[in-house]
Amino acid sequence: MTRNAVVLLSGGLDSATTLALARRDGFDLFALSFDYGQRHRIELECAEQLVVAFGVKRHVVMPIDLRVFGGSSLTSDLPVPKDRPAESMAHGIPSTYVPARNTIFLSFALAYAEVVKASDIFLGVNALDYSGYPDCRPEYLEAFERMANVATKAAVEGNEQVRIHAPLVRMTKAEIIRTGLSLGVDYGMTTSCYDPTPAGIACGRCDSCQLRRKGFAEAGSQDPRPYAV
Amino acid sequence: MTRNAVVLLSGGLDSATTLALARRDGFDLFALSFDYGQRHRIELECAEQLVVAFGVKRHVVMPIDLRVFGGSSLTSDLPVPKDRPAESMAHGIPSTYVPARNTIFLSFALAYAEVVKASDIFLGVNALDYSGYPDCRPEYLEAFERMANVATKAAVEGNEQVRIHAPLVRMTKAEIIRTGLSLGVDYGMTTSCYDPTPAGIACGRCDSCQLRRKGFAEAGSQDPRPYAV
Repeated sequence: MTRNAVVLLSGGLDSATTLALARRDGFDLFALSFDYGQRHRIELECAEQLVVAFGVKRHVVMPIDLRVFGGSSLTSDLPVPKDRPAESMAHGIPSTYVPARNTIFLSFALAYAEVVKASDIFLGVNALDYSGYPDCRPEYLEAFERMANVATKAAVEGNEQVRIHAPLVRMTKAEIIRTGLSLGVDYGMTTSCYDPTPAGIACGRCDSCQLRRKGFAEAGSQDPRPYAV
Repeated sequence: MTRNAVVLLSGGLDSATTLALARRDGFDLFALSFDYGQRHRIELECAEQLVVAFGVKRHVVMPIDLRVFGGSSLTSDLPVPKDRPAESMAHGIPSTYVPARNTIFLSFALAYAEVVKASDIFLGVNALDYSGYPDCRPEYLEAFERMANVATKAAVEGNEQVRIHAPLVRMTKAEIIRTGLSLGVDYGMTTSCYDPTPAGIACGRCDSCQLRRKGFAEAGSQDPRPYAV
């Protein structure tokens, strides 16, 4: 008997690897992406390619407008930080933080999971390379899981506990890449840049590009995606 | 010094009373409503009237599409239950339940709160007259509050704890109505029906209409809104 899992799929390197891990674990895959006014919309095109490649049963792209609130360089006209040294990435929360983003994303995943009778929700957050986001930490994920288990009709009436799976949470970027390659992920179908060119080419200089490049270098592998610089 | 609060404002009787309580407590008011494909869109017109009446500083109406997932009679073509006896309302979770709705609403409220530097979030849920929704119970609200306090940049970097206020949670509908009347709420600006006529007239027969009518009767007050039957 197969079991259903909801996987948050941004189209980035981490969520692609997470999708591969959920498939390896034998789940039928229900993917959820968001169109939230992000600058890096090329992500959604990558998500579509991954959905086909991994035989996802249903893919929902949820439009949500986080620009209404403002407060993040990913969804407004604030500049995306570039060329930050690794020391500075490790301290403080950058302007690319989107208020309560993972809480909003996981809340929609919880609704989707209830409708498709899934008890398992996968997301590709990472606490090591996490660029300082509070909602990527294990203690946050545990608190969300506890909340989810008193939140829904399925959790209250059913016997199944909701489980939030964050299989990458303690992995380095190089470990994530090695894991994905061993599971057949084509990272040419993923994008990580916070500020790509209009044609979708990665800038090579934002925090996310720097972490990705360092990860491929440490994994001893060639990144199949091009960079502007 | 004034403090900001985010208030979830559906335009119903409960959220109107909650808005009045937040104002009484001295908060500057930031209201948040959702346009989520509900059948009862007349609610949003009521919310606009309440925003003006209570001097709300900013009102955000967030469009979200819960119909994509399906699973509730409030957002799909499933019939809304009518004429249910009170005993049956008290048991089981009806088809008007929207999967993870309050979790999604509170998640957006958390993002809004962070952007406007509010630590206080008010919502008008009720555990007595709650028609069986799991995400209206005190244990759910406490779990959400714990999660919120590890979720955001504001909570992690700041000294302020996020507080989820549900001042109606243990009140009867009659107590809610008496409280609102004492604070000057014009319940003619509120609507409660799950299935109003195209002109916005309450059906008088759904669970929500029945609870409202009983509440006004017990409060010894006249409901200023008309009913179809």
